[in-house]
Amino acid sequence: MSFILWFTGLSGAGKSTLANAIVPELARRGHPRVELLDGDEVRTHISAGLGFTREDRRTNVLRIGYVARLLARNGTVAITAAISPYAEDRDEVRSKSEVPFIEVYAGASLDAVAARDVKGLYKKALAGEIKHFTGVSDPYEPPTRAEVVVDTGVETVQDSLQNILSKLEALGLVKTVSQFQEVRS
Amino acid sequence: MSFILWFTGLSGAGKSTLANAIVPELARRGHPRVELLDGDEVRTHISAGLGFTREDRRTNVLRIGYVARLLARNGTVAITAAISPYAEDRDEVRSKSEVPFIEVYAGASLDAVAARDVKGLYKKALAGEIKHFTGVSDPYEPPTRAEVVVDTGVETVQDSLQNILSKLEALGLVKTVSQFQEVRS
Repeated sequence: MSFILWFTGLSGAGKSTLANAIVPELARRGHPRVELLDGDEVRTHISAGLGFTREDRRTNVLRIGYVARLLARNGTVAITAAISPYAEDRDEVRSKSEVPFIEVYAGASLDAVAARDVKGLYKKALAGEIKHFTGVSDPYEPPTRAEVVVDTGVETVQDSLQNILSKLEALGLVKTVSQFQEVRS
Repeated sequence: MSFILWFTGLSGAGKSTLANAIVPELARRGHPRVELLDGDEVRTHISAGLGFTREDRRTNVLRIGYVARLLARNGTVAITAAISPYAEDRDEVRSKSEVPFIEVYAGASLDAVAARDVKGLYKKALAGEIKHFTGVSDPYEPPTRAEVVVDTGVETVQDSLQNILSKLEALGLVKTVSQFQEVRS
């Protein structure tokens, strides 16, 4: 069974880190076909020219949703890691999905991501040098019914990863490693 | 083995008709996962806002190529049916493909498509009412090394379809129906 694993959260909350970490774990559990649609990569390939207005953000998220849907309905697990700040847009993608849609909220707080400031962007955003910066000068609407919430401001990557995998196992979307090995032997 | 089947040709040359006709034929030959990226549909989903300038046409074609590549490298046959008028852009998609790229030139002449004028667009384009109309007021560069050329101005749909399938069989990309039935029995 394929599915869409949709990460959402502030810039620097660890979406890409977790998304990259989960790919080999899915392979170990019997999902050899996994495609990661990272926010920056997708902007380059299908959303160049779009900005960060309300409407452009919506368009970007719907495009990612469209590509994820095409992949997933053909048996590939699609993992997305874009900020996707608006609940309405995420819900629209969810409602159009033809496979299970698993929303993972990388819920590091603004304080936590601004303190880490991996890319140095929060400093600039807080100084007013970047407009439309999510969480600072642009809204972020946390999910109210995400399938998984991981507090990436506090948890280790391994802990968050385990939480996500446990949920996917509980939903019957991935096997445990031992189940998969049984099937193969 | 997956592949990209890339139709190119003038508006009204029969690209979509052939692309739609080939989907069930591929399924009969052992390719259950086939995704058709039709020109109009793709414009709606990932290229809304792009126009018909040289640069926008390039962007549109590269986006279709990106999505086709994601699908094909995960085992789904990707069929595209966009005019894709510039040889340079098609060649760029070809060079980035990670799977066999099969270019099919739906080679109906301008006279033939204008005479049929299925959507009534050529009449308007020839009267100057539509700008940047491929073949009339915008260039179309026929492929010089397409894997398959079908003269959709003269051949029947069935003939063109058979030509394409024969080529795919010769390339080892699809089985014949009888080969596939042997494998299953």
